[in-house]
Amino acid sequence: MAQTVSHQIRLAARPEGRPGPEHFRAEDQPVPAPGEGQVLLQTLYLSLDPYMRGRMSATKSYADPVPLGEVMEGGTVSRVLESRHPGFAPGDIVLSHSGWQSHAVADAKGLHKLDPGAAPVSTALGVLGMPGFTAYAGLLTIGRPQPGETVVVAAATGPVGSAVGQIARIKGARAVGIAGGAKKCAFLRDELGFDAAVDHRAPDFAEQLRAACPGGIDIYFENVGGAVWDGVFPLLNTFARIPVCGLVAQYNGATATGPDRLQGLMREVLSRSLTIRGFIQREFVAQRPDFLREMAGWIAEGKVRYREDVVEGLDRAPEAFAGLLEGRNFGKLLVRVAE
Amino acid sequence: MAQTVSHQIRLAARPEGRPGPEHFRAEDQPVPAPGEGQVLLQTLYLSLDPYMRGRMSATKSYADPVPLGEVMEGGTVSRVLESRHPGFAPGDIVLSHSGWQSHAVADAKGLHKLDPGAAPVSTALGVLGMPGFTAYAGLLTIGRPQPGETVVVAAATGPVGSAVGQIARIKGARAVGIAGGAKKCAFLRDELGFDAAVDHRAPDFAEQLRAACPGGIDIYFENVGGAVWDGVFPLLNTFARIPVCGLVAQYNGATATGPDRLQGLMREVLSRSLTIRGFIQREFVAQRPDFLREMAGWIAEGKVRYREDVVEGLDRAPEAFAGLLEGRNFGKLLVRVAE
Repeated sequence: MAQTVSHQIRLAARPEGRPGPEHFRAEDQPVPAPGEGQVLLQTLYLSLDPYMRGRMSATKSYADPVPLGEVMEGGTVSRVLESRHPGFAPGDIVLSHSGWQSHAVADAKGLHKLDPGAAPVSTALGVLGMPGFTAYAGLLTIGRPQPGETVVVAAATGPVGSAVGQIARIKGARAVGIAGGAKKCAFLRDELGFDAAVDHRAPDFAEQLRAACPGGIDIYFENVGGAVWDGVFPLLNTFARIPVCGLVAQYNGATATGPDRLQGLMREVLSRSLTIRGFIQREFVAQRPDFLREMAGWIAEGKVRYREDVVEGLDRAPEAFAGLLEGRNFGKLLVRVAE
Repeated sequence: MAQTVSHQIRLAARPEGRPGPEHFRAEDQPVPAPGEGQVLLQTLYLSLDPYMRGRMSATKSYADPVPLGEVMEGGTVSRVLESRHPGFAPGDIVLSHSGWQSHAVADAKGLHKLDPGAAPVSTALGVLGMPGFTAYAGLLTIGRPQPGETVVVAAATGPVGSAVGQIARIKGARAVGIAGGAKKCAFLRDELGFDAAVDHRAPDFAEQLRAACPGGIDIYFENVGGAVWDGVFPLLNTFARIPVCGLVAQYNGATATGPDRLQGLMREVLSRSLTIRGFIQREFVAQRPDFLREMAGWIAEGKVRYREDVVEGLDRAPEAFAGLLEGRNFGKLLVRVAE
């Protein structure tokens, strides 16, 4: 058998602000033969997610950075080409973390076999994967929505936000989504059943948000940070909960200069008994079986819908990723690497 | 019976910054005879607490402000002089909320009878009262100290902080207290059994705090805000919990100008999975019976000690209160109004 070559996107430089093509480089590298307990994988879909911006910086966040010159990391849906593990056979489709590359060798024990008959395999990177689980665990464990409460989420057409709003409604809460542009807002209302949608680009965003939340905000699922926060903050009710799973608007390093908003935040944390709680989904890994069962059921019943934004070809990943950080995608952003 | 006259301290003006004598005025007013279901009370002890600063401002915090010209509010230990309620008799000692005055008429249903044989009655305003309960509920319900964890609390010789540190130790955690001056720090170590004490007035406060917390901070019980926060923040461990029950250092209105610390806070909330949770003790009222039983037991066993700072005479309350906001008291601050 001829040696397999992997087409790879590697981290070429650490961006200061917005990442661009100059921070990546493409490279073809031979893939070693799989050893005992390993499999050779072909990437079908690569997931692009905001957390990857953190991995491009030298600063350790909740995970180590990608070393300069290494293949960018990322979740993938991959096909087994060769297997040296009894649990996997050629043709199996698996959830892997092979990164931005066309082929990879992986330890079988880190893989999850997917059932292509149960759901489109790409959903393992979105609504039935890490983003969906982030929404599920953060909303239900930290947010704990009660019937009649108001749940607000930004980046609401993305895979986390869209699941947050729809699960909130399943639990009897009002869902208010924040998104960029009229088209996305219409999608939230008309396709996903959000009670209201507000365009964060509108000059009167804060007033529109206030009008959409006449009873205030009980849960703000924070995944963007930045200017949206200033509109949300005055509307938070006593005992409001704020699960924090991302701060996309801050990832490119724009920093606010002043005045200092920390004291004002703490004053309201105290006087309104607020809860602010950061989390990474893996903290709640014990809930994954419940999540998979419940979410699959909600999708089957039509209670949770999802939208994918699929880019064709690995070489377009850098450009698509830069767009993700600016909200140019519309739905869960995936790169189709192979058929 | 001659009509009773109450000596009162009323709110004369709303302070912008530090409160002083000019914001209060003394007045003698006749007290009406108690009606059906009411009692006539004589104040023995008035409690002075940081939250009162909030009541002096026009802005609603978690409670309404004291109206201008009205008697300052506050918890009291009082003696029943006359009773028109079958549950109370002259001579009974009760926990009341009579405010800054020598006599008052109160509805019997808002009073709690105290047993002078069980504990000194003044403790109903401190270690066995609202401050002790604030420490108990906030530390155990929000902080949830685990054996070996490090708990840091400021204003540590005060009634909340001293209880927080001692309960932390009962639960097997390390207690690190922050206080102003060497005398208070020595008291924390030598009398209350804190594992370490750090003087927030020391020029190298942040370095001393770091040295006192070699394993980082798992729980920071926030009751002061201000500059102490900047020393604590870098030391917070992943999954640290921050119950917020007060921000004394901010109460007098000093505001930080810039740079903006909010983004940095949220970034660390996310990357370290922090929990910040404001609370008022009354949220946890269902735990009060457990608190009273457990805390009385700990006091009896010598596991919780307390210190009172008693000022003689109601007319000294304004000055003592101003000192409280600057940390000039040493222990739970009480005004002895009558023997």
